[in-house]
Amino acid sequence: MARMNRLDALGLFAGTLTTIAFLPQVVRTWRTRRTDDLSLAMLVLFTLGVGLWTVYGVMMKLLPLIVANAATLLLIFFILWVKIRNLSRRP
Amino acid sequence: MARMNRLDALGLFAGTLTTIAFLPQVVRTWRTRRTDDLSLAMLVLFTLGVGLWTVYGVMMKLLPLIVANAATLLLIFFILWVKIRNLSRRP
Repeated sequence: MARMNRLDALGLFAGTLTTIAFLPQVVRTWRTRRTDDLSLAMLVLFTLGVGLWTVYGVMMKLLPLIVANAATLLLIFFILWVKIRNLSRRP
Repeated sequence: MARMNRLDALGLFAGTLTTIAFLPQVVRTWRTRRTDDLSLAMLVLFTLGVGLWTVYGVMMKLLPLIVANAATLLLIFFILWVKIRNLSRRP
């Protein structure tokens, strides 16, 4: 693992922003349980992509990418789960 | 710039997914012009974060991060623009 330096700090800050960006969406989705304006295709592609970014981060030994993408993956899973549940309830 | 290798290809594929993930959302937002279920805070934080990821990619000379985040930035700008326009029309 590369040692922590200014670039790692920059990456971790960027990752913190893109990860916590999902928190308001998680809260909104949690409260309203509405996901009509969220695209299922977006959620599925994004989940796959973030998963692969995590793999890329692990293989490149880039700590900011690993931390940010693993955390984002957890949040996006929740939103995806509510979206799929909503779709299955409206035939 | 590092030469193209398998890890670059993995990163570019991951970036392609997370970038095109926004296309269905852009299309949906374009068609419906509705953004009620999209959190403004999410969009702002995400725009800032993706911008910083682009800077991180440039400084780390990681082509996949530069390409993916610059492209995502363009798409997220559109969604953010519609969201802000909608908010300004509903006082």
